[in-house]
Amino acid sequence: MKLYTFHRSSASFRVRIALNLKGLPYESLPVHLSRNGGEQNLPAFKSVNPQGLVPVLIDDEGHSMNQSLAILEYLEETCPQAALLPSNPVDRARVRSLALMIACEIHPLNNLRVLHYVTGELGVTEEQKNTWYKHWVELGLTQLEQRLSQEPQTGRFCHGDTPTFADCCLVPQIFNAKRFECDLSNVPTVMRIFDHCMEHEAFIAARPERQIDAS
Amino acid sequence: MKLYTFHRSSASFRVRIALNLKGLPYESLPVHLSRNGGEQNLPAFKSVNPQGLVPVLIDDEGHSMNQSLAILEYLEETCPQAALLPSNPVDRARVRSLALMIACEIHPLNNLRVLHYVTGELGVTEEQKNTWYKHWVELGLTQLEQRLSQEPQTGRFCHGDTPTFADCCLVPQIFNAKRFECDLSNVPTVMRIFDHCMEHEAFIAARPERQIDAS
Repeated sequence: MKLYTFHRSSASFRVRIALNLKGLPYESLPVHLSRNGGEQNLPAFKSVNPQGLVPVLIDDEGHSMNQSLAILEYLEETCPQAALLPSNPVDRARVRSLALMIACEIHPLNNLRVLHYVTGELGVTEEQKNTWYKHWVELGLTQLEQRLSQEPQTGRFCHGDTPTFADCCLVPQIFNAKRFECDLSNVPTVMRIFDHCMEHEAFIAARPERQIDAS
Repeated sequence: MKLYTFHRSSASFRVRIALNLKGLPYESLPVHLSRNGGEQNLPAFKSVNPQGLVPVLIDDEGHSMNQSLAILEYLEETCPQAALLPSNPVDRARVRSLALMIACEIHPLNNLRVLHYVTGELGVTEEQKNTWYKHWVELGLTQLEQRLSQEPQTGRFCHGDTPTFADCCLVPQIFNAKRFECDLSNVPTVMRIFDHCMEHEAFIAARPERQIDAS
């Protein structure tokens, strides 16, 4: 398989973790989101994904897929081991809802194109932009903390004692939050799970600075 | 089953469509997002969902689930007919990625809490807020149009000739876009599919103005 990826892209990071957890080898095809005016906007990549977003997974039959959570579901369906979703539908719903809390409520407000719009079109100051960033991350992570600390299904990972889609989404979000110096002191359960994930080779090997395009 | 819902909430609307398409009866429990300072913030609802977001589905065994796309997956797994995902994993990935383009790239930037922050904390004008809204909707729908008009899997619905998760997400987004008077003249394939959906009773019965809390 081939993965169009950018080392700092959270969505690419999610897929790299899932591929590693399943032990699936893949070739990294880097797309640098801030070099050359954004390589995602060049014709070469637009022909792969007209939306201009990474990640894009090309499977062994040449099928092209985008949207990180759709790719995770595809990997789960075609390569069930190691399972990244529990077997029970109610538990599966819990894992997916934790993943979506990150993918729909936190991350979309803080990606590059939105931050550019906030400073460019809305003309807010650098400080307001950072406040915006921290607001959505800290709000989202606090709500995640509330669930993870109170729901009995939480284990060493977000759901039980093996990694799931939720952990694939959580880890990249924390990397981002640290880069923007968000306050993480109020989310001890989130950080306990993050630290546990980062002891595992599948997560370590997916880190931004371990990618071939890390500068 | 019971559904905590708000008539104008796009995420609730998605779930109402899916329940109707599968012929599953449910009781609507309205949570008015702008009355009483936002009923989602009252203790009565916070005990149901500490995140304060609708929809929440309570299944017949009393399990509580949130995040609309996680609920759709749960319904698909527990009540496979009518199928809202194709059977082939590559096609399923396509449907999910279309749904996620709406759920992750368009909708999160335009919900109430974000619009409040933009006018409140960032202090932008009403006009800038409307420009913000239209920017993300029109950009996202243009990208969706590009895919739907070019990919051969598109049929009378987003994928083939029966409704899927993608249509459950598309219809509420168009309702919202119309409410904010977005320009929809450049997305003819999107609108052709929308019009086709709105001929079906499952979609019609899920419309905001057909809900018991519509004012």
